[in-house]
Amino acid sequence: MLKMKTTTPPPVLHNLLSMQALDAKKITYLLDRADYFLKTAVAKQEVLTTLRGKVIVNLFFEPSTRTRNSFEIAEHRLGAIVLSPDMKQSSTTKGEILIDTICNLEAMGASLLVIRHPDNNLTHFLASELKTKIAVVNAGDGSNEHPTQTLLDLMTIRQHYPDFSRLTVAILGDVSHSRVAHSLIIGLRLMGVERIRIIAPDYFTPEDADLAHLDVFHSMDDGLNNVDIVYALRIQKERMQPEQRPKDDQFFKNFGLTEARLALAKQNAIVMHPGPMNRGVEIESSVADGSQSVILQQTQNSVAVRMAVLETLLNKP
Amino acid sequence: MLKMKTTTPPPVLHNLLSMQALDAKKITYLLDRADYFLKTAVAKQEVLTTLRGKVIVNLFFEPSTRTRNSFEIAEHRLGAIVLSPDMKQSSTTKGEILIDTICNLEAMGASLLVIRHPDNNLTHFLASELKTKIAVVNAGDGSNEHPTQTLLDLMTIRQHYPDFSRLTVAILGDVSHSRVAHSLIIGLRLMGVERIRIIAPDYFTPEDADLAHLDVFHSMDDGLNNVDIVYALRIQKERMQPEQRPKDDQFFKNFGLTEARLALAKQNAIVMHPGPMNRGVEIESSVADGSQSVILQQTQNSVAVRMAVLETLLNKP
Amino acid sequence: MLKMKTTTPPPVLHNLLSMQALDAKKITYLLDRADYFLKTAVAKQEVLTTLRGKVIVNLFFEPSTRTRNSFEIAEHRLGAIVLSPDMKQSSTTKGEILIDTICNLEAMGASLLVIRHPDNNLTHFLASELKTKIAVVNAGDGSNEHPTQTLLDLMTIRQHYPDFSRLTVAILGDVSHSRVAHSLIIGLRLMGVERIRIIAPDYFTPEDADLAHLDVFHSMDDGLNNVDIVYALRIQKERMQPEQRPKDDQFFKNFGLTEARLALAKQNAIVMHPGPMNRGVEIESSVADGSQSVILQQTQNSVAVRMAVLETLLNKP
Repeated sequence: MLKMKTTTPPPVLHNLLSMQALDAKKITYLLDRADYFLKTAVAKQEVLTTLRGKVIVNLFFEPSTRTRNSFEIAEHRLGAIVLSPDMKQSSTTKGEILIDTICNLEAMGASLLVIRHPDNNLTHFLASELKTKIAVVNAGDGSNEHPTQTLLDLMTIRQHYPDFSRLTVAILGDVSHSRVAHSLIIGLRLMGVERIRIIAPDYFTPEDADLAHLDVFHSMDDGLNNVDIVYALRIQKERMQPEQRPKDDQFFKNFGLTEARLALAKQNAIVMHPGPMNRGVEIESSVADGSQSVILQQTQNSVAVRMAVLETLLNKP
Repeated sequence: MLKMKTTTPPPVLHNLLSMQALDAKKITYLLDRADYFLKTAVAKQEVLTTLRGKVIVNLFFEPSTRTRNSFEIAEHRLGAIVLSPDMKQSSTTKGEILIDTICNLEAMGASLLVIRHPDNNLTHFLASELKTKIAVVNAGDGSNEHPTQTLLDLMTIRQHYPDFSRLTVAILGDVSHSRVAHSLIIGLRLMGVERIRIIAPDYFTPEDADLAHLDVFHSMDDGLNNVDIVYALRIQKERMQPEQRPKDDQFFKNFGLTEARLALAKQNAIVMHPGPMNRGVEIESSVADGSQSVILQQTQNSVAVRMAVLETLLNKP
Repeated sequence: MLKMKTTTPPPVLHNLLSMQALDAKKITYLLDRADYFLKTAVAKQEVLTTLRGKVIVNLFFEPSTRTRNSFEIAEHRLGAIVLSPDMKQSSTTKGEILIDTICNLEAMGASLLVIRHPDNNLTHFLASELKTKIAVVNAGDGSNEHPTQTLLDLMTIRQHYPDFSRLTVAILGDVSHSRVAHSLIIGLRLMGVERIRIIAPDYFTPEDADLAHLDVFHSMDDGLNNVDIVYALRIQKERMQPEQRPKDDQFFKNFGLTEARLALAKQNAIVMHPGPMNRGVEIESSVADGSQSVILQQTQNSVAVRMAVLETLLNKP
């Protein structure tokens, strides 16, 4: 008798606004699909017919090169019709007007929107107010969440460590302004990570760190000891008042991820960063480009993981 | 013997600069094709091969999300190569330079241009000066015309009322600055509508209203009585000096389309708006989203009608 | 016995940063391929599968309508996935950050980048610092080079004069700020042109004109005598301080290419210009649109020549 490969049915997902809407099973499904896309369409540079005729609109109210390119490549690889209107100077920034915009795009035949917006409450607002069937992916809302970034981070971690429960993860730097950190902490917990450390100065430490059972360190030497994953964050100068911004050299001196400090982590610890990097501020160039860095691997995974999300949201059973 | 469906041959159209270039027969052909696309490629989310290899360039010298997205979706659904260069900061705004730009795009192999421009005289200038064979669609020139908007409006009206000649249409608000109203009035006349009312304050009433045999009302209560179609316009603040702009609440009090006022129209009157709406200024939210509103239907028709225009201009016999 | 057509194998090219990387044989190969594309895919308005699934990213840090549209059409005709992120307001302008951007685009699966940048040293910097395998095409770096413009110029010249060695070429106007002129002079030399004249006021004459064996004229009447090719340049006001800019009417009076002056060249001399033209400044309108002008032919060739470059860079044996 032939041994059949059992295939998990895709989870039912209508939106991807927050990591909180996922669970370990759904995440695992998405990462498995992403692995599949990485080995097939991405590696072979193919254009699939999966989303042929489906219209995806990328609405970026904040400038972005990296995330937007990554989404656009994923959309094209799936064969979708891709629209990327210039929203930077758009008046469609307020919630009610944005809902009109979304309803109109749905009426024009759009199937999915990828939205980046400076407002922290935007996706929460959309989740409660949007009555349409159009799918929405949160590509970053203020300092709130950035779920597809977390999925590509989890994909990268899984490529190095199959068992999440044993990991110790250190998140460095500007945690309080970071949607990447916020989503990552949710995602790591969902996948079973128990030991999450924050290494940051006081002014970058989130107020609810204790509630979230995060281990807070204010010294790199203490915090990096024995960790498996060192996740350096970009300092989000654009989300701070000028007088709040630390001086680059001062920050690097106290909290920059240097080769010397990285040596305190486990021997095979991996170094991650969501990009774009401020080299010489939160990370030393030799660490960013060093043998422990998986930063370009994160970027490579980004297209595959977004293909998995788009396919799952649009190919509902 | 089989009864054969007689098919009308497509009209010969080189450009679509003004509604004045059309007649009832040509409009009917375009609306029939739009109905066909709505039921087929739009409903089934297809990509056709009709314009495969044809290059269409969208030149928007004014910001636009809605019209541009609608054109781009129509172009992609027909299988065209779609270019949308950023023209907002372009120096190619003056007529002579624009003609050089157009000739160059034709030399590069472009077959059709969709142009939006703040200059009222632009398409008149193009009609007289452009010697090339490239097709041009006017997607809005200042306060002059917006013919594809009118075609989608006529398509929407025809879906509700098969006989144009019996209709009474009321156009509300900022008529004098509205290219939508200007083209709509031409289109309604071509389709046989005899009774067109303007309901507007003095300062929004066009000077040639009498010449155009429009029935002018300065009171909503008088003007809405017994109409079949209530067409509310967007107040075009960007085309007025600051001191000319009416206050939002004052305008809404006197000329806003409310539920109470709509009740004065015929019982099944439809409510239209070209978007984007200023809710609470020219229209009450409950009317915009109410059962008589066909505003999202207009948007849905926009893609199909633009497909019909593009196909007709480019598939010349 | 059948006579077999011998086909030259494509040259091995990884980048196209400078005309200096080419030679007569490589240029001839590219022009032959461009001629082929002009007669086939361009003339027939086709979409090929040559680059299907390959991602090309157009990074234009300077505004451009013409060059960018030409590249995008070439990319679409070859069947590539085309990305054109808005880089005008991007912070990714400095060399090191640009290298991070390029490495990230490669990690996302991009195969080729088309870069336009205001920095004269950019491509020199990339040639020495970029360690990746991604192909880069220089679409204009400051006043340094613009090699694909030169290739389309050479293609246009060859369509009129098969033997480059006998030509006398006059380059008019703002030579010192012109990347077009810089690359053209290199290209003409590589193809065997011995007699190259510069006709320009002192302040537009490059300092190394003698070293480059250019014949310098400060008078149109002297310089145009007996030339085969009259190449008028655009005055690059954006690369001059306001006080350096000549007055338009003064420049036209002394150095504008008029019908009267063109009559001094050989009877069948061709008139070229890289566009966009300042009519009435460096060129008279009747000359730009006259029977000797091949300016639109240059534009037409631009798509075919860029197809040849993209194909050659990406279809490595």
